[in-house]
Amino acid sequence: MSYPNYSTSHTTSPSAPPMPKPQSQSQPQSAIAYPYQPPPPQSNYGYNYGQPPPTGGYGGGPYGYPPSFPPGTHPEVIRSFQMVDMDRSGFIDAKELQQALSSGYQRFSLRTIRLLMFLFKNPNNDLRIGPKEFTDLWSCLGHWRAIFERFDRDRSGKIDATELRDALYSLGYAVPPSVLQVLISKYDEQRGQLSFDCFVECGMIVKGLTEKFKEKDTQYSGSATLSYETFMTMVIPFLVAE
Amino acid sequence: MSYPNYSTSHTTSPSAPPMPKPQSQSQPQSAIAYPYQPPPPQSNYGYNYGQPPPTGGYGGGPYGYPPSFPPGTHPEVIRSFQMVDMDRSGFIDAKELQQALSSGYQRFSLRTIRLLMFLFKNPNNDLRIGPKEFTDLWSCLGHWRAIFERFDRDRSGKIDATELRDALYSLGYAVPPSVLQVLISKYDEQRGQLSFDCFVECGMIVKGLTEKFKEKDTQYSGSATLSYETFMTMVIPFLVAE
Repeated sequence: MSYPNYSTSHTTSPSAPPMPKPQSQSQPQSAIAYPYQPPPPQSNYGYNYGQPPPTGGYGGGPYGYPPSFPPGTHPEVIRSFQMVDMDRSGFIDAKELQQALSSGYQRFSLRTIRLLMFLFKNPNNDLRIGPKEFTDLWSCLGHWRAIFERFDRDRSGKIDATELRDALYSLGYAVPPSVLQVLISKYDEQRGQLSFDCFVECGMIVKGLTEKFKEKDTQYSGSATLSYETFMTMVIPFLVAE
Repeated sequence: MSYPNYSTSHTTSPSAPPMPKPQSQSQPQSAIAYPYQPPPPQSNYGYNYGQPPPTGGYGGGPYGYPPSFPPGTHPEVIRSFQMVDMDRSGFIDAKELQQALSSGYQRFSLRTIRLLMFLFKNPNNDLRIGPKEFTDLWSCLGHWRAIFERFDRDRSGKIDATELRDALYSLGYAVPPSVLQVLISKYDEQRGQLSFDCFVECGMIVKGLTEKFKEKDTQYSGSATLSYETFMTMVIPFLVAE
């Protein structure tokens, strides 16, 4: 199987993407950007699929409950989890997750919550989130919130399509214009303005699908050959996440 | 670009799939079934992606309102449409579609309704359904209802996973076991029993994704090479159909 020979360069240890410099136009444009070091936003939005967001960074000491929280988890994270895990089972469901996140962030729609659960769940616990997954999710949302606020320059609580593109880019996802258009076309009722909830939903869809596709694009060429069965099993879990 | 050489035979004019013969085991099993003539359900569920369901067949005469109903549309279809199209604009939205279908079928979930709208909409009217699309949808649901009832042998209003497989097969979709498992795993709360609403949702997901994939599988080999951009723009409309 041959891949189109339009890939430029590869490295085996991609580094985290830098924050974009929206004013810079100094770098030349190229057909496909590789490796995962993204070009500035003005360049094309090629196949630098991006990096997972950093985790951790909340500091704090070890906590006794529940025992499976990672060492150093911030007390606010543990408190938010404890508040909704009334039976102290160490696991929470979708509605409890919605409630737990509302103390640190906001009330996300149940649709976004289910997408978050799908992407962050432990494979052995399909319908519930444990301390480790909750901590990862909290940390990821903290990073995304900071990105969102950087691009919400007028502090309106909303970003537009261009800002969504740049925000996703900051997260390491260089989304082609056609993909961005399909994404934002679904939020017409909000006149192209996305709340943090919608931003997280859009971003998590991009993150989840990009990671799935990357697994199949073993050559990092920007293309992948998929069997019908592979395609269907990749995609369906996203569709019926509710 | 080469495709794996496991395709058997091709025809340029695939015919509609026959109804399955669940008791028959006479045909030999093959790795991948081609063309779209499906093997019996006991054979593998290879890459006979299936056919669109038949449309029409409701008979009836020409009706004056709205003028764009296809000739011969059954009066019940027109009446159901008219009932909810209060402003006689000739278009209905998701909630109106839900109401219109409830007179002939049942009250579908809004999630299923939005999936139906996405699959049957006129590309020029993203958020509304016109007479032509409504008639096609009504006809398709009639066909699917008949299939569902055939497999709901105890008339419980539910079918199980095996019956879902056979029902989808009757509709021309030979769903691989792994895909079926991903589909039904999302309905765990119903103990593997699917209502007609869920059956339509499952089936429409299979129908929509299979048709999209077939467009890219120009060799009918059961595989397709997709660019990242193509993959994302194919899939995202299904994800954010609400």
